[in-house]
Amino acid sequence: MEKIRVGLIGQGFRGREIAKLVATLEGVEITAICDHYPLSVEQSLEVLAEKDCHPKTFSDHHSFFASGLFDAVLILTAWDHHVDLAMEAMELGIPVGMEVGGVYDVQQCWDLVDTWERTKTPFMFMENCCYGRYELMVLNMVRQGLFGQIVHCDGSYGHDLRSEIVMGKKEWHYRYANYKTRNCENYPTHEIGPISKILNINKGNRFLTLNSIASKSAGMHDYIEKYHSDDEQLMRDHFNQGDVINTIIKCANGETINLKLDTTLPRFYSRSFNIHGTMAMYNEDTQSLIMDGKFKEDWSHLDNHWRSAEAALELYEHPIWKQFLEDGVTGGHGGMDGLVYTAFFHCLRNGHPMPLDVYDAAAWMVITPLSAQSVANNGAPVAFPDFTRGRWIYNTPVENPSFYHLD
Amino acid sequence: MEKIRVGLIGQGFRGREIAKLVATLEGVEITAICDHYPLSVEQSLEVLAEKDCHPKTFSDHHSFFASGLFDAVLILTAWDHHVDLAMEAMELGIPVGMEVGGVYDVQQCWDLVDTWERTKTPFMFMENCCYGRYELMVLNMVRQGLFGQIVHCDGSYGHDLRSEIVMGKKEWHYRYANYKTRNCENYPTHEIGPISKILNINKGNRFLTLNSIASKSAGMHDYIEKYHSDDEQLMRDHFNQGDVINTIIKCANGETINLKLDTTLPRFYSRSFNIHGTMAMYNEDTQSLIMDGKFKEDWSHLDNHWRSAEAALELYEHPIWKQFLEDGVTGGHGGMDGLVYTAFFHCLRNGHPMPLDVYDAAAWMVITPLSAQSVANNGAPVAFPDFTRGRWIYNTPVENPSFYHLD
Repeated sequence: MEKIRVGLIGQGFRGREIAKLVATLEGVEITAICDHYPLSVEQSLEVLAEKDCHPKTFSDHHSFFASGLFDAVLILTAWDHHVDLAMEAMELGIPVGMEVGGVYDVQQCWDLVDTWERTKTPFMFMENCCYGRYELMVLNMVRQGLFGQIVHCDGSYGHDLRSEIVMGKKEWHYRYANYKTRNCENYPTHEIGPISKILNINKGNRFLTLNSIASKSAGMHDYIEKYHSDDEQLMRDHFNQGDVINTIIKCANGETINLKLDTTLPRFYSRSFNIHGTMAMYNEDTQSLIMDGKFKEDWSHLDNHWRSAEAALELYEHPIWKQFLEDGVTGGHGGMDGLVYTAFFHCLRNGHPMPLDVYDAAAWMVITPLSAQSVANNGAPVAFPDFTRGRWIYNTPVENPSFYHLD
Repeated sequence: MEKIRVGLIGQGFRGREIAKLVATLEGVEITAICDHYPLSVEQSLEVLAEKDCHPKTFSDHHSFFASGLFDAVLILTAWDHHVDLAMEAMELGIPVGMEVGGVYDVQQCWDLVDTWERTKTPFMFMENCCYGRYELMVLNMVRQGLFGQIVHCDGSYGHDLRSEIVMGKKEWHYRYANYKTRNCENYPTHEIGPISKILNINKGNRFLTLNSIASKSAGMHDYIEKYHSDDEQLMRDHFNQGDVINTIIKCANGETINLKLDTTLPRFYSRSFNIHGTMAMYNEDTQSLIMDGKFKEDWSHLDNHWRSAEAALELYEHPIWKQFLEDGVTGGHGGMDGLVYTAFFHCLRNGHPMPLDVYDAAAWMVITPLSAQSVANNGAPVAFPDFTRGRWIYNTPVENPSFYHLD
């Protein structure tokens, strides 16, 4: 098997994590890394040296892209540069895996789509949560019709990031600046990715409208007052970002989706994945699966139609995860990173269409600027662009899917 | 102790349940009951006879109210008649306890408020969930400042009512007709009641705007198709009510509240009570209490700042529940019915202001017609009336509260 040579741009915390992972993947070789910050490059080299991997290093993305050292690039930078770098790579014919987050205006989504349509350079949106174990189990069950019609979905990014945001001031992290200035659903894709696959978004369904309402911004202020009252500059900081952003999306086929961004208050981590159909319901926070009464026969070893979702894995584990468990789980975030990066290289090698494509990326990332508009208008409904330009009406699952496809 | 003579109007399922409860309360005597349906009256008489209680019976509310047989009335009818009957009682100077649900237009809330302001007849809104054990524990903690600033609250009426709605066709239940015709947050008070107390609504805070978005209506159709396909009339029924109604409320002090009505899909019962402040979070579905890191000292017997909410009862049980447990819990719905009805009679006897007053009732019930407006306008923001006519700015906790007060 000929090795795919890959270049990695952005070697901060997430970038290094992915570097470590990719260095262990079969048939892939990291030949170049790039970051503005010499320290990040150094730390990355150290980590990679342990895996006997010694890529060329770059501090500037133009020379990085011009080096001819790699067949594909992974974009692992701060949010601000994702789209521009992805477009630059596509224009150069270099296949792209782009990490999540990073759209500031609707037009950037159009730019991304237009660039892909013109160049047809392979592009994948690296939304790891699409490969979450329970997300895939539920997808598997939905495809088998066990949920009936899907009617409503919930998802959240519930993650206490207060210390990271404060640290971001010293150690330069994009969240600090973003939280000071913006007020929007800034990180929707971990939830909306798996939900979109379940709802067949861009393939017979699409997002129609969105309403976003922001709570006040009090979490960072109270946190700083309690833990950093000696830092005069921090004490003067004002954060525009509301602590909780409530977003409701309405779909063409009548489903509603409730998203919650909840990152500056004390809480437990959760994506609150909740899928509710006319015949079943899955709920992440309680790890429960509810099947309608009449399914009882099929669940004869249970006393009622409520059961632990964990127990349901035995019956409904998605084939992707079955295989993954046999092969031995790799990579961070409970294996999801391993799966999403494996999928990218697998499809690239075999010339398969990417399982999370540019239309997925555009439809999911556009939630951020649309929510900013709606928040600014007190939750007024905002319409989604149709990035497929009408093809969602006729789009069907891909004809020759890779094993890692999610159609 | 002189007995309070009480009349009960509405003797359906809920009415009988309350009749049984009230018959056991000290210092109260049921002297009259009223229902249009002879069968309901009969069944109620049977139940009450077991408790040696033999009230006069009425089939017509005019003669019931004119009978002079009672000092107070409990309104336990279908939603449709709550407000009219409450106003009729107040005009006659008969103190009223009114069960929840039942506003179809904003104006009815004004009518209720105006009638109370003109007559000053004692009026209490019988929202039992305000007396829920965990709702009160959290209220107690919030009053002690342990949650910091409250930023966001969630609540739901998550209750699979499909069989009840179908039965409602034969046995006349208001939900059947309401679900066929309306499309709104038709039952918000179980969640919004406790949340309002926590947020000091009408006392320094108020609801500003609301956005409501309805999912499609598929749950009843699929349920009927699966279980009642032989009933031609049911099979032809169309239900306007969306299966899930998502509502976001924004408050004057910047808090958001996310309400979910979820009653026509398979699910477990939950009110999904979730209170999120800058220093703590309570979450019903996981029965967990999160305290910010620095509270660790106060929780020395725990390994981290996550703990089971049940264990927290030991420290933070509300005085009302402490007393209630000592006295021996009575009444349905986990004791909440016993508490709310005890509170009503206690305040009436002692001339105390009612703990859930006409302004609470108006602010909470108006959510239903406002949500209908917003749903019809695709989630456009709708402004709340200010039923206090500006007094919320200066209103403070009542000076001489009853033990059962929730200020």
